[in-house]
Amino acid sequence: MTGAKTKLSFAISGFPEFTPEVRDAERRWLAILAQVFESYGYANIETPSVETVQTLASKGEDVDKEIYALTRLAAAGEGTAKLALHYDLTVPTARYVAKNHGNLTFPFKRYQMQRCWRGERPQEGRYREFTQCDIDVIDQDNVSLAYDAEMLEMAVVALTRLGVGPVRFQVSNRRIMDGLAQHLGLSDGTLLARILDKVDKLSTEQLSDRLSSDLGLDAAGIDTCIRYCKIKGGPDAISDGMDALGLSNPDADAGRDALCALLARVEQSRPADFVIDGDLSISRGFDYYTGVVYEARFIDFPGYPSICAGGRYENLVGQFMKRKLPGVGISIGLTRIFTKLLSEGLLEPGRRCPTDVLVAGDDSFPEAEAQALAAQIRATGANVEVLPDVSRLDKQLKYANDKGIPHVWIVRDGQHQLKDMTTGAQADISVEGFAAARAE
Amino acid sequence: MTGAKTKLSFAISGFPEFTPEVRDAERRWLAILAQVFESYGYANIETPSVETVQTLASKGEDVDKEIYALTRLAAAGEGTAKLALHYDLTVPTARYVAKNHGNLTFPFKRYQMQRCWRGERPQEGRYREFTQCDIDVIDQDNVSLAYDAEMLEMAVVALTRLGVGPVRFQVSNRRIMDGLAQHLGLSDGTLLARILDKVDKLSTEQLSDRLSSDLGLDAAGIDTCIRYCKIKGGPDAISDGMDALGLSNPDADAGRDALCALLARVEQSRPADFVIDGDLSISRGFDYYTGVVYEARFIDFPGYPSICAGGRYENLVGQFMKRKLPGVGISIGLTRIFTKLLSEGLLEPGRRCPTDVLVAGDDSFPEAEAQALAAQIRATGANVEVLPDVSRLDKQLKYANDKGIPHVWIVRDGQHQLKDMTTGAQADISVEGFAAARAE
Repeated sequence: MTGAKTKLSFAISGFPEFTPEVRDAERRWLAILAQVFESYGYANIETPSVETVQTLASKGEDVDKEIYALTRLAAAGEGTAKLALHYDLTVPTARYVAKNHGNLTFPFKRYQMQRCWRGERPQEGRYREFTQCDIDVIDQDNVSLAYDAEMLEMAVVALTRLGVGPVRFQVSNRRIMDGLAQHLGLSDGTLLARILDKVDKLSTEQLSDRLSSDLGLDAAGIDTCIRYCKIKGGPDAISDGMDALGLSNPDADAGRDALCALLARVEQSRPADFVIDGDLSISRGFDYYTGVVYEARFIDFPGYPSICAGGRYENLVGQFMKRKLPGVGISIGLTRIFTKLLSEGLLEPGRRCPTDVLVAGDDSFPEAEAQALAAQIRATGANVEVLPDVSRLDKQLKYANDKGIPHVWIVRDGQHQLKDMTTGAQADISVEGFAAARAE
Repeated sequence: MTGAKTKLSFAISGFPEFTPEVRDAERRWLAILAQVFESYGYANIETPSVETVQTLASKGEDVDKEIYALTRLAAAGEGTAKLALHYDLTVPTARYVAKNHGNLTFPFKRYQMQRCWRGERPQEGRYREFTQCDIDVIDQDNVSLAYDAEMLEMAVVALTRLGVGPVRFQVSNRRIMDGLAQHLGLSDGTLLARILDKVDKLSTEQLSDRLSSDLGLDAAGIDTCIRYCKIKGGPDAISDGMDALGLSNPDADAGRDALCALLARVEQSRPADFVIDGDLSISRGFDYYTGVVYEARFIDFPGYPSICAGGRYENLVGQFMKRKLPGVGISIGLTRIFTKLLSEGLLEPGRRCPTDVLVAGDDSFPEAEAQALAAQIRATGANVEVLPDVSRLDKQLKYANDKGIPHVWIVRDGQHQLKDMTTGAQADISVEGFAAARAE
């Protein structure tokens, strides 16, 4: 991959927009992702940008602070906001599945590529508006553990096809953390998970303070947590680390079995520039995860935020209907990955415009004839345009050159020639000949 | 086109969302529109969902009331909102062109297919969130009048390819209305255009009242306006109507010449189920239009809101930079058209899932082998899935049937057969044979 290093600066801080040639590259990415997800049988859906505040709130302490609410400008001050922009695609999908339950076939496998919004402070890789590409399976009663592996496999295939790598995936299982909470005598693992989610951002002292003040852990408990977060590696390293902590109870054991089986399974198909490791410190910031949790980062940019993340949730849909519909999913942070490669000069921009042929001519070629010829060439399947009100051929050629249009169809005194803008070669042409060459 | 009549009901009033098979049809529409726009050389861009309130406000009295402002939920009450969701794609594009001026080649031809938001009362065809598909040309100093015709031609081709029709386009030119304002002794045509834009919604008495109270017109002036709004038809009808009113001044004459030339030009390529008429009552609700204005409606659903609209604007970009960059564009109301066809049963839904082949088997076929076979079949380019944790073949076949998966690859006791779910036919198969059949 090649491209110039691009310094990103947007009209509104935190809200990316791109030139046409960069947008073309982004569309190529979206097409590749759609193709990968569909190759595994996932159907595309979209949900509204907006959910009720009630639907979105209370899924995790960090995102709660970042929710953008909507108010009609003309009705400012008219009481509390009821609608807000979604900050991810998992919660909206859970709501969608509950709403459309009777019209869906389960397991429901969907992908969703949409913008999300978070009112956080813009910084490298963190935007206020960004596109997420999510894959999820939601089933009735039970979701096969096979999908835990399928998610990871699809994410790896997708990133590979995009030319993104090397990448490290870190995988854990919330049931092990639930087991740890029980081991520590805590009634509920949610708060423990929220605190351990910050292990990379807090110093050991800060982490100890929060474990002590928020959970009432003593020095031994804190030490257990700190040692727990250092358990990383393959199935053996995970098992050995848990044994050394004496961490064994039904939840911890079930989580360990699932994690180790998953790690062994995905190791077989792992490309050389991808690392897939167990890492018990991974908990993800959302309260709704109940099983496997995933997180991926660039190996070459270790300080950059995670580029892909997800996990298993047993009870998310249950908030919106009486049935339990568990799911598992993974989300690829398209904007975050794309802008990093763009700013590092690792992204090949696309085309400035889709035109294949510019129909050009001098004063001897009236515009009405140019438009009629353009329509004929367009009918062969090519993308064709005319530059109206410009009779100087050099200006028409400059326009084609500036826009990266590969061919100019020049008409002078009734003679038709096609100019290849890359080589400069020029040869006689007719619509029939052009159509025949395209059909080959 | 066929399909069941669908009663639309959404989780949040005014915010459409669709089942996977309807979304598949919507994606097909988006792909068709992109193809048509690209065939004329238009490049895709996207702008953020958000602009500053300052950028969006004061473009027309109706939309001002409908702007959705953003506030961080956690910071409610912290002063006035500075950001708001865009209500169309024209204003954001003007801002985009000003911002990216140095990186674009002019004439800049772009298309944009994005969601827009308006906080209006939801009713048939009017949503709070909807997708617009816009084509615009923006040039330096002057935009060729040829693009006035190209916009209309592209909109007609696009609607035809979508199978939307019969449709009536009504076309006018704001310069004629400016000429009318001068003819009436008014200093500025903006308010006149805003009032005449309501001609369909107001009774003659209400219209007369507003013309009298807001513009101070006397009975003769009001009569002129009412007769003006009835001038419709081809070039001759437009000219005759203006002559009968005695409406002639430099603006009115220039507008008439442009409108009549445009009508004559597009009449040649008009499909049989499209009507393209001049109609001087058309002014569009936005203040920024300065030349041609377009509006289209379903002929079969005359009370339904306009499905396509646009026009020429000389000074919109100038608000964001010191140069004058005029433009002309047209917007196709995708959601408005799509939901109408859907609710009338005129839309063919797409597929429920993209899967081509379900790999199935009984207890003699372990899941690891099923996944390995699925990977092999997927490598031929097909979309393939496995239904894990289900060993009963009848359940796997039911799943394929419910999801509309056309083929099931059945493995029993080492025998491979491909079942055609439409015909029920079943025949021996191998990966090599399948790949060869696909390549044909």
